[in-house]
Amino acid sequence: MNKKIVLASRPNGLPTVDSFRVVDAEMPRPAEGEVLLKTLYLSVDPYMRGRMNEGKSYVEPFELNEVITGGVVGEVVESRSENFQAGDIVAGYLGWQLYQVATGDRATVTSITKVDPSLAPVSTALGILGMPGLTAYFGLLDIGRPAAGETVVVSGAAGAVGMVVCQLAKIKGCRVVGIAGSDEKNEYLTGELGVDATVNYKSAADIRGALKDACPGGVDVYFDNVGGAISDAVLTLINRRARIIICGQISLYNLERPDVGPRAQLPLLVKSALMQGFIVSDYAARFPEAIPRLGRWLAEGKLKNAENVVEGFENAPRAFLGLFAGENTGKQLVRVAEPGGAK
Amino acid sequence: MNKKIVLASRPNGLPTVDSFRVVDAEMPRPAEGEVLLKTLYLSVDPYMRGRMNEGKSYVEPFELNEVITGGVVGEVVESRSENFQAGDIVAGYLGWQLYQVATGDRATVTSITKVDPSLAPVSTALGILGMPGLTAYFGLLDIGRPAAGETVVVSGAAGAVGMVVCQLAKIKGCRVVGIAGSDEKNEYLTGELGVDATVNYKSAADIRGALKDACPGGVDVYFDNVGGAISDAVLTLINRRARIIICGQISLYNLERPDVGPRAQLPLLVKSALMQGFIVSDYAARFPEAIPRLGRWLAEGKLKNAENVVEGFENAPRAFLGLFAGENTGKQLVRVAEPGGAK
Repeated sequence: MNKKIVLASRPNGLPTVDSFRVVDAEMPRPAEGEVLLKTLYLSVDPYMRGRMNEGKSYVEPFELNEVITGGVVGEVVESRSENFQAGDIVAGYLGWQLYQVATGDRATVTSITKVDPSLAPVSTALGILGMPGLTAYFGLLDIGRPAAGETVVVSGAAGAVGMVVCQLAKIKGCRVVGIAGSDEKNEYLTGELGVDATVNYKSAADIRGALKDACPGGVDVYFDNVGGAISDAVLTLINRRARIIICGQISLYNLERPDVGPRAQLPLLVKSALMQGFIVSDYAARFPEAIPRLGRWLAEGKLKNAENVVEGFENAPRAFLGLFAGENTGKQLVRVAEPGGAK
Repeated sequence: MNKKIVLASRPNGLPTVDSFRVVDAEMPRPAEGEVLLKTLYLSVDPYMRGRMNEGKSYVEPFELNEVITGGVVGEVVESRSENFQAGDIVAGYLGWQLYQVATGDRATVTSITKVDPSLAPVSTALGILGMPGLTAYFGLLDIGRPAAGETVVVSGAAGAVGMVVCQLAKIKGCRVVGIAGSDEKNEYLTGELGVDATVNYKSAADIRGALKDACPGGVDVYFDNVGGAISDAVLTLINRRARIIICGQISLYNLERPDVGPRAQLPLLVKSALMQGFIVSDYAARFPEAIPRLGRWLAEGKLKNAENVVEGFENAPRAFLGLFAGENTGKQLVRVAEPGGAK
């Protein structure tokens, strides 16, 4: 049987499992040109919180009682498209459902692209070789333009994007300072990823003081995944011509009051600094340049991957909520099925 | 006799005339390689407020009981330099004093450059063809990159920088919306400078509503001279990939409490927008490209100039304070003497 997960209600503040509902669904049948997919992995990502609200943010909101959509890796179990055959592994922005139809036509919302399982585990298409990896790549390299010897600070450093940013900045020869919310995450950053210093924002008595100690030469690049008070502290430590990449603001997504704090304009003015927001789709035309490069670094061991995998389709909402509790080190995924199984 | 104006005390909040003191000074004598200058015009500029505080902001602070320095146009009355002769008109960052020595050596703080009186009135070296004009030029064209048909919003629109920004944006074919603090200023902007719409931030009951009416297509470029609540309102109206140029934050310079308000990060993120601070000296290497271009537009009547001139050396502090009361339409200057007079 088929199942899907729908938006049950729009949350005020922090979503709960009751914001979602698992419901039975009809088994879809592919039309000419379509394929039938079995879902293998679902991606849960912080940006999806914005889609739970009414009104457009980055992207259109989810509809009440309609299926949640996000990054999905699936296996073609039946093909009526000349571009795919049964057994192909594909990725796309698709529904949270066990089975669904999709097409290779980029003009459709159910557009899929092939994933090469010989390059890396297929789950990487949702992480280090997918949206989060590309986000890290373009945000850091295109906006941040880090130079060897500069200090790069990364908030949400142990998350799906942050861990890639940290490693790319090390590849570029930078001093890298990671901010994360547990000693375990920070030990991963320094022990496994070669990050030079870390700050635990939950346990530090004085975040600014801890950051200042970690950045004796000031901050040249700040890759911001979190916003709020952590970013306020970093902003007081920037150097002239610093670049601040606004990638995410996870600390704000569940706020029920306006986001008020020290305004950034004066420090930006005094330091001739740049602050730039972006969404990875701004760089879609350049994905073909970035994915093989990330793949090569991964194959060479210059990039390490980390995934946090929750088992079972029904647990997707819980995995999503875990993002806001800081549960994941690396990319948070939901494993729904193994490839090669029958439908 | 010679006189100078010194910093009498560091202000908390708004400076007063008592923050300054006019004192007698010795008549300096030029050494070999130096010239003796008679001051013709003093420039008063908002950035100078920051120099009255202790501690470095953009530039070094003024010292207590030492002469105030800023933009000065003077006439060479005695030359011991082979590069200058008596009667030459020059400009530099010099002291607020009736007479002083200076050199043509760029390595010294008293470095001066010649002003060509045949091109435009010499006072323009402190305004539209000087620091404020260059600030408008590089901020708007280099950071703002306005395209024809885009909407450019300018705060402090009737000030020395703002009035040039408005006109450059019109030259680029943009819809230009000026924000200023009086109907008289706004009539100048629309009647003389061709600005498309204006908002009087002092009389508008709802600044955001007035801006929204003035910008039916949203805001593509915001040239920010003021900061604070006006800028908060503009930020709610930006389009995707908007560029926000942080040139000045005059509304904050006299604040006695931290500058707190809606954080800019989330709107920048959602709109893939850029916010960039700068100081005109970042572009010093490109001044030779910009000054003749501005001069040509001025000669052709594509750029109009406006100056607000206070007469008399002793009135320089009052002219400076007037900036924060919004007294000036166009560049605020202090006329100290006419050229051609004897020392």
